[in-house]
Amino acid sequence: MPTYDPKNVFAAILKGQLPCHKVYEDELTLAFMDIMPRSDGHVLVIPKAPSRNLLDIEPEDLAAVARTIKKVALAAKDTMNADGITIVQANETAGGQVVFHTHFHVLPRWNGVELRPPAQEMAKPDVLAAQADQMRQALQG
Amino acid sequence: MPTYDPKNVFAAILKGQLPCHKVYEDELTLAFMDIMPRSDGHVLVIPKAPSRNLLDIEPEDLAAVARTIKKVALAAKDTMNADGITIVQANETAGGQVVFHTHFHVLPRWNGVELRPPAQEMAKPDVLAAQADQMRQALQG
Repeated sequence: MPTYDPKNVFAAILKGQLPCHKVYEDELTLAFMDIMPRSDGHVLVIPKAPSRNLLDIEPEDLAAVARTIKKVALAAKDTMNADGITIVQANETAGGQVVFHTHFHVLPRWNGVELRPPAQEMAKPDVLAAQADQMRQALQG
Repeated sequence: MPTYDPKNVFAAILKGQLPCHKVYEDELTLAFMDIMPRSDGHVLVIPKAPSRNLLDIEPEDLAAVARTIKKVALAAKDTMNADGITIVQANETAGGQVVFHTHFHVLPRWNGVELRPPAQEMAKPDVLAAQADQMRQALQG
């Protein structure tokens, strides 16, 4: 398996070199809005430590990411008034991976509404900011 | 959120009332072949304790499931000669959930090969048995 390449967009977000609409942060994980959402309220959860994907992630980082996914899923379902949540996590290009820093997609879902294709359209920054704000408040409440 | 209904097919598998092609088992989790695979080598990972999905799972069960998913993903990629792995986990009907006992899909992927639609076609039992056997050996090795 290829090794971790530190020049990826999520590494840049973790270093503060690129902005994000932050939803949640703790010692080991970060959650932020996907700027090209496949559903409204689409959040990404990543470990802070470098790993390429599920195949090389350290167990403690994976456990921390799993805890954060549950928290974010509940907050996203609640604040977006969603009927359900789909979790997707892609490993390697064949698995659908585009950015090679481990990430889990938390996708709010509504009855009868399909997911949009990946990387289709940029969301408006003020919409993402408002969604992130609501989720942050739900997570702090 | 609705409560856990113990009359679901995965609860029956856990009780031994229904058979499965077992890939891995430990104190808290079970992994077995999906009988209607969306890709060859499609495995399901479930907690043994009852939970409906990610929204009500206990943290220790989720952590255990995450550990098992990583193990199974590595074994499935290796034994199936896959190019990648996609993880999918559905919560509530809108999220794509059909069986209401928490489960994660571990889907081997190959470059240029799309996932099949869910619940489309039953796999041959001897094929599933052989795949499970190879994965079990990889996990013990």
